[in-house]
Amino acid sequence: MRDMTKKFLEDAFAGESMAHMKYLIFADEAEKAGFKKLANLFKAIAYAEFVHARNHFKALKKLGDNQQNIQSCIAGETFEVEEMYPVYKETAKLQGEKEAQISTHYALEAEKIHAEMYKKALNLVNEGKDYEAEKIYICSVCGYTTEEGAPEKCPVCGASKSAFVEF
Amino acid sequence: MRDMTKKFLEDAFAGESMAHMKYLIFADEAEKAGFKKLANLFKAIAYAEFVHARNHFKALKKLGDNQQNIQSCIAGETFEVEEMYPVYKETAKLQGEKEAQISTHYALEAEKIHAEMYKKALNLVNEGKDYEAEKIYICSVCGYTTEEGAPEKCPVCGASKSAFVEF
Ligand SMILES: [Fe+2]
Ligand SMILES: [Fe+2]
Ligand SMILES: [Fe+2]
Ligand SMILES: [Fe+2]
Ligand SMILES: [Fe+2]
Ligand SMILES: [Fe+2]
Repeated sequence: MRDMTKKFLEDAFAGESMAHMKYLIFADEAEKAGFKKLANLFKAIAYAEFVHARNHFKALKKLGDNQQNIQSCIAGETFEVEEMYPVYKETAKLQGEKEAQISTHYALEAEKIHAEMYKKALNLVNEGKDYEAEKIYICSVCGYTTEEGAPEKCPVCGASKSAFVEF
Repeated sequence: MRDMTKKFLEDAFAGESMAHMKYLIFADEAEKAGFKKLANLFKAIAYAEFVHARNHFKALKKLGDNQQNIQSCIAGETFEVEEMYPVYKETAKLQGEKEAQISTHYALEAEKIHAEMYKKALNLVNEGKDYEAEKIYICSVCGYTTEEGAPEKCPVCGASKSAFVEF
């Protein structure tokens, strides 16, 4: 693929991913304000942006089989754990930015767990097996991720059991 | 907010949005391959990345009320329609990149509709009213968006009625 087309498709993938994310965040806010049909509009259009992002991703030949896909997840999570978030968190601390310190700390703690879960998934898929955990629990405040059931209190942010979402 | 912290939070929002998107795409592939628990893992972790992205977005003070949120959507969609996608599509054509021509064409056509829908939503919310459409239909192939029910054939990509997702 020609370089400029590749660059633009990568930018388009980033733009679609951020638009999708923004609309999901706005849908929650509309819902809270009692605007159900507006929330539905945001969710529907978020899905359209997912379709666009997927088309760009496929055109970039970035979609592989399950093994390749998991490897790409491990690489991303490992970069975040070893490079990105430690720098972002330290910078927020250095600059006295409290909210950024918290949001980067929350992310860093969860990505460590994600990297391990994806490594476990890769070992299973390498043997032709599906993942093992039946249920996964995510803290809706900080993103803490566990297979051990929702804890009474989130070990990362202190949120209560009711803040956990079951998958 | 200090500039470097702001820059890093913006980068973190982009990174989390792309990770979220990648995991949703991979979840679909795992599902198709019959790996249900792996698909569930991808979806659960995608939600954790949503939580991280939302925390960064809030720390950046980018979350407003419904009116401000819709204005931000109109600005984004208008940029894509008037600036970004025409350039990306023309570049793909110039460079003979067929798949990129198609994926940018599909996106451009849908963003035009999104911009109009958000403008309609803003007028309603300005009067204190919820959005009007009860149901919204999205083509899962190209992202074409309509409130008029799923058409027999997608006017943008030609996909059949069964390719439409109802919201
Ligand atoms: Fe889009
Ligand atoms: Fe992660
Ligand atoms: Fe938490
Ligand atoms: Fe994350
Ligand atoms: Fe759009
Ligand atoms: Fe379509």
